[in-house]
Amino acid sequence: MIGQSGIAVKSVQRADAASVAELSKYGVATIHEAMGRVGLLAPYMRPIYPGAKVCGTAVTIFAHPGDNWMLHVAAEMLQAGDVAVLGTSSDNADGMFGDLLATSFRARGAMGLVIDAGCRDTADLRSMQFPVWAKAVYGKGTVKATVGSVNTPIICAGALVHPGDVIIADDDGVVVVPQARAAAVAEAASRREAKEAATRERLGKGELGLDIYGMRDTLAKAGLLYFDDEAAYQDRTASQVVTASQRGPHK
Amino acid sequence: MIGQSGIAVKSVQRADAASVAELSKYGVATIHEAMGRVGLLAPYMRPIYPGAKVCGTAVTIFAHPGDNWMLHVAAEMLQAGDVAVLGTSSDNADGMFGDLLATSFRARGAMGLVIDAGCRDTADLRSMQFPVWAKAVYGKGTVKATVGSVNTPIICAGALVHPGDVIIADDDGVVVVPQARAAAVAEAASRREAKEAATRERLGKGELGLDIYGMRDTLAKAGLLYFDDEAAYQDRTASQVVTASQRGPHK
Amino acid sequence: MIGQSGIAVKSVQRADAASVAELSKYGVATIHEAMGRVGLLAPYMRPIYPGAKVCGTAVTIFAHPGDNWMLHVAAEMLQAGDVAVLGTSSDNADGMFGDLLATSFRARGAMGLVIDAGCRDTADLRSMQFPVWAKAVYGKGTVKATVGSVNTPIICAGALVHPGDVIIADDDGVVVVPQARAAAVAEAASRREAKEAATRERLGKGELGLDIYGMRDTLAKAGLLYFDDEAAYQDRTASQVVTASQRGPHK
Amino acid sequence: MIGQSGIAVKSVQRADAASVAELSKYGVATIHEAMGRVGLLAPYMRPIYPGAKVCGTAVTIFAHPGDNWMLHVAAEMLQAGDVAVLGTSSDNADGMFGDLLATSFRARGAMGLVIDAGCRDTADLRSMQFPVWAKAVYGKGTVKATVGSVNTPIICAGALVHPGDVIIADDDGVVVVPQARAAAVAEAASRREAKEAATRERLGKGELGLDIYGMRDTLAKAGLLYFDDEAAYQDRTASQVVTASQRGPHK
Amino acid sequence: MIGQSGIAVKSVQRADAASVAELSKYGVATIHEAMGRVGLLAPYMRPIYPGAKVCGTAVTIFAHPGDNWMLHVAAEMLQAGDVAVLGTSSDNADGMFGDLLATSFRARGAMGLVIDAGCRDTADLRSMQFPVWAKAVYGKGTVKATVGSVNTPIICAGALVHPGDVIIADDDGVVVVPQARAAAVAEAASRREAKEAATRERLGKGELGLDIYGMRDTLAKAGLLYFDDEAAYQDRTASQVVTASQRGPHK
Amino acid sequence: MIGQSGIAVKSVQRADAASVAELSKYGVATIHEAMGRVGLLAPYMRPIYPGAKVCGTAVTIFAHPGDNWMLHVAAEMLQAGDVAVLGTSSDNADGMFGDLLATSFRARGAMGLVIDAGCRDTADLRSMQFPVWAKAVYGKGTVKATVGSVNTPIICAGALVHPGDVIIADDDGVVVVPQARAAAVAEAASRREAKEAATRERLGKGELGLDIYGMRDTLAKAGLLYFDDEAAYQDRTASQVVTASQRGPHK
Repeated sequence: MIGQSGIAVKSVQRADAASVAELSKYGVATIHEAMGRVGLLAPYMRPIYPGAKVCGTAVTIFAHPGDNWMLHVAAEMLQAGDVAVLGTSSDNADGMFGDLLATSFRARGAMGLVIDAGCRDTADLRSMQFPVWAKAVYGKGTVKATVGSVNTPIICAGALVHPGDVIIADDDGVVVVPQARAAAVAEAASRREAKEAATRERLGKGELGLDIYGMRDTLAKAGLLYFDDEAAYQDRTASQVVTASQRGPHK
Repeated sequence: MIGQSGIAVKSVQRADAASVAELSKYGVATIHEAMGRVGLLAPYMRPIYPGAKVCGTAVTIFAHPGDNWMLHVAAEMLQAGDVAVLGTSSDNADGMFGDLLATSFRARGAMGLVIDAGCRDTADLRSMQFPVWAKAVYGKGTVKATVGSVNTPIICAGALVHPGDVIIADDDGVVVVPQARAAAVAEAASRREAKEAATRERLGKGELGLDIYGMRDTLAKAGLLYFDDEAAYQDRTASQVVTASQRGPHK
Repeated sequence: MIGQSGIAVKSVQRADAASVAELSKYGVATIHEAMGRVGLLAPYMRPIYPGAKVCGTAVTIFAHPGDNWMLHVAAEMLQAGDVAVLGTSSDNADGMFGDLLATSFRARGAMGLVIDAGCRDTADLRSMQFPVWAKAVYGKGTVKATVGSVNTPIICAGALVHPGDVIIADDDGVVVVPQARAAAVAEAASRREAKEAATRERLGKGELGLDIYGMRDTLAKAGLLYFDDEAAYQDRTASQVVTASQRGPHK
Repeated sequence: MIGQSGIAVKSVQRADAASVAELSKYGVATIHEAMGRVGLLAPYMRPIYPGAKVCGTAVTIFAHPGDNWMLHVAAEMLQAGDVAVLGTSSDNADGMFGDLLATSFRARGAMGLVIDAGCRDTADLRSMQFPVWAKAVYGKGTVKATVGSVNTPIICAGALVHPGDVIIADDDGVVVVPQARAAAVAEAASRREAKEAATRERLGKGELGLDIYGMRDTLAKAGLLYFDDEAAYQDRTASQVVTASQRGPHK
Repeated sequence: MIGQSGIAVKSVQRADAASVAELSKYGVATIHEAMGRVGLLAPYMRPIYPGAKVCGTAVTIFAHPGDNWMLHVAAEMLQAGDVAVLGTSSDNADGMFGDLLATSFRARGAMGLVIDAGCRDTADLRSMQFPVWAKAVYGKGTVKATVGSVNTPIICAGALVHPGDVIIADDDGVVVVPQARAAAVAEAASRREAKEAATRERLGKGELGLDIYGMRDTLAKAGLLYFDDEAAYQDRTASQVVTASQRGPHK
Repeated sequence: MIGQSGIAVKSVQRADAASVAELSKYGVATIHEAMGRVGLLAPYMRPIYPGAKVCGTAVTIFAHPGDNWMLHVAAEMLQAGDVAVLGTSSDNADGMFGDLLATSFRARGAMGLVIDAGCRDTADLRSMQFPVWAKAVYGKGTVKATVGSVNTPIICAGALVHPGDVIIADDDGVVVVPQARAAAVAEAASRREAKEAATRERLGKGELGLDIYGMRDTLAKAGLLYFDDEAAYQDRTASQVVTASQRGPHK
């Protein structure tokens, strides 16, 4: 059950270290493509400083608005290589996490935090180089009054995260790789990177994607019309132009 | 795996009809409380007309931005008593659903739609009394070019929905009850309603919640100070007032 | 001090009944103009049903996100003719208020609620015709764990509200009239309405505001240029046109 | 030049009355499809009461934030059958338009208003049945200090509008039809409606869009896989499933 | 009266220099906690470059949308150690402030600006190291047509600011300390910092907040259940788990 | 027609190189003022790294949500000195552009991209110093299924852009200068800069804008009242103060 309060699971299975190490070589965009273009958190999740990057295993936290109690409970479950991931029971931007908790998390081995709420003490966190991806930067403090959960499945910024899943985060945002798929995704990412390297070289020489990917035919079939210049285009009246998108059923 | 494209599952197990019938007696707010205050979709999901209400079993749809192809695929899977629920691979407000699809859905037995995207032809849908909860009302049409999935787990407006789960929607929004918990939640909702009826009567006579719920002691313990009037409050300097929220550790 | 927690003031001075009665004759837009175009709450505050209207004296509530405890404390302070007004310590859309509290509030004499957070049980509230202006309609429930305040100055949706101020709310939103200014504002509103009635009659006959308000000269001085038709306008090159807004210092 | 201040064009060519009359038979969604899925204003433009509908020729207004002066200038240019359309130089939600201006506009023959800003006196406007599509309902008043323009091209809610273009607005939002295309779009809308009527009948009998539109082959080619039930789907490991969207180049 | 136009107060009392100097040692998050978790401006107020920090006394400005006239009026009232703070009569993102005004403000002694609107020339301001906290960065210019006020109480980004109050702003946002409380808050902040330093050291050694703050008992009383692993948790059926948040009255 | 799909115009006229070179000397804010305070894109368009700056001629792209096909088509039309500008048929934040396309665009001579959608691979783009102004940074990939257009007029972030127009973008946002006005705007910007340099020097010496711009009289006429201190202001009752904004007609 998603979002249940009152549960703290001490020990969870984590994605295997080899897969995590392999995934850490790739960026968020590449990994998300390797998974079939899924697994991203919402685009409002931003790093608190540019260049932040992390790859680790999820310890999940379910918290209530204006209440950061469960971050303290989670600290005890964190191990080396973990990334804490926090979802809330409703929308909230309060600064649930700051430099004291970061000190504690780092001492326990945590590599970073992904929080669907606010973060504060961001100048200190930048000095510490403790990376956080958050919905907001906000000085607002919180209470410790209502229990949530630790290490149950959560939804964070629109993505489902299970304890032990792999979390990769960089300047482009955050992606979650289900534990069971970690090895396969790492391999797919590797293949994708290799392929992209070759393409990058060709593109860098001025070759066109249209030719590299063989798109000219499909574009023509999809109805794209080329005109030499604006005058040629104006010569056709708008009413005569039947575009690709106007063909076929629309409803 | 959440959000996978290319899958259409024809037959899924649905929550038992008795539980659905029982749940249909209660509103969204009551059911969400009966579940332990979880299960709600985000508050941006609004009915397209006031007074809309539905309770049924989910047929889930995963679609891509600007593309409503999978709604047609889903039509074939809909049965009497179903509510279609659509999540997208990224944020999109296009009008994926209109009166033609509503005609088709109704003919197949569907009772309504919950769509984390846009809806159109809303005047017609209101005339038909076909209830839709949507993120936006928008005339924008869509293409049919990229496949998503039908009857796989999805995330819709921040909530995890499995095929066959119970969907209850009314003026207050939308709540999802996992299939396995439907009977228990219905029973809890029933108990809650009964209790509320008695409370409502007492409150209606002017009795205070403070007394009915016995809150006066806990409020005092939490640090609430009563003053007879504004003058009495002003007499105390602000610096002397130590509020409950200032006690204890905050970080 | 704005936003202090832990204070409940039992008895506050309210705006005089005669001024409140007089103000109740006017709409939000008129009253806000009569005050010099100030006093409005932010435009996201919307009535939960069309046609809702209220005019009464404020009982103020300061609450924390996800926590509606202070609404119960406020119930005891409410008198006939009051409107409860709730501000929060940080942004929150949880459904802090529903039909039980509405039953209680009405039994105590309250005429409505203005809440910078969420409201639920809205179908019931519409049936009861208990008007609420809220930031969101959302079924999400709340806890009772952290104390706020009642009858201290608050900020609600960007406006400062003191206990006893006059609150007028209708389809156009919500405006607050400071207690000390209630009589003067009512009188100014009355004068404004009288003047508008005369203007409305003239406008209804097709007379132009340009003439009624004598704007033609000031428009010319401000640099508005009239052209007989589009061709005349095209004849002047854009570079020759010097508009009013381009004259004088801009930084 | 878009957005130039200081211009008022008295007489503009309007779309021919026959085309406007023909377009008035169709809804926003149909017309936007008939144009090739373009021409819509942004989805935040909403009618101030449900069921509002208008079709007329645009008198365009360019205004500055917090300033409604040009609405008075526009009143003089309005003719029977016109719809006033207002764009602003920057984002603003102030209530630029209310019942007095509506009285004036109606007296001049205007049928409604589309305003990329706020509207007020909405209860009166609903009583008058004067339809307005606005970004916000807000009581906030405005000054008359800075000139804009009337009857120059504007951008309103993301759409380009020329004076004399046809504006159709209903519950689904607002669409603009360029004057020169009015006749052709009306005809295309008519064809579309006719086709949809036939489709609606078939769908109403339970026939599927999949069959009516012949989608089964294209879905198969696009990679959609059907499974009889959830067990069948689980039998395939996720890693084996190659979806349509994973094929081919993505970057 | 909040938001009144047409007032310019030349000389205001400012918070005493010693308290301002003391407060300048602490960050926004610390000071807001020292005040009882109040006084913050909304989280959308962001510095125009990372690492910006300021602490000074407020000169307040009330301005209208699209109009920066009162910033020039305020320049005359600025003294060494001041921070200008601007609130608006309605939501606006225009670039009211740029490098010329910054040059003027600095020449008068101002240390920075907090503006609930837009800012421009941000590359120049970064070069000058003139810190600004703003709602938006936007090149849009403004007029000088409508008077507002200087040195009257304002609401800026949801917070009440009086002339002479202390403004502290850093990467975490902006907090306002009422003049009369400056000394007491500085002292409380000092105590808090001292206490945090000790806690930070313990946390840095791996000690848990759970133990330092003695939370284990209260967590147990609040209903948190520990499970050794996921299997142990699965063994209990969801229906048997009664969480803390499900106990007691909820409405 | 704005937004038409299916058109690719190979050769377009571009603004003359001399004007572009001249415009490249000025910032976005200055150029927008020189045009009469128009031409800006919406403030949500932000550079992906601070200090990014570009000035070039527009190659326009019209794309559909979740589909970046037309960016590949556009690559072929790009020449040295061009800036690609992309508008969409509806709101979308998917990462349509990344390092591969940037490699291709740079190889063709493009200087940057302005995209009313998402951008990804931002760490790589920063390393490449390939400047992009985007609505969002988001790793989400796209399909290549629906054709849009290249080198037709588009609306991007609320601004009308024709192929060949001059695009200037920096930390303050993005402005578009119509091709025909490029020379005149460059000259006006030059005059403005010269004038500002003189003003800056005077302001830097502590002279006031009030005096430099001669505002004291107009402020008095507009109704601004000066008070020596807060006591003097309090002596006047609020009801007696008639502000400038309260004079004259408001509706």
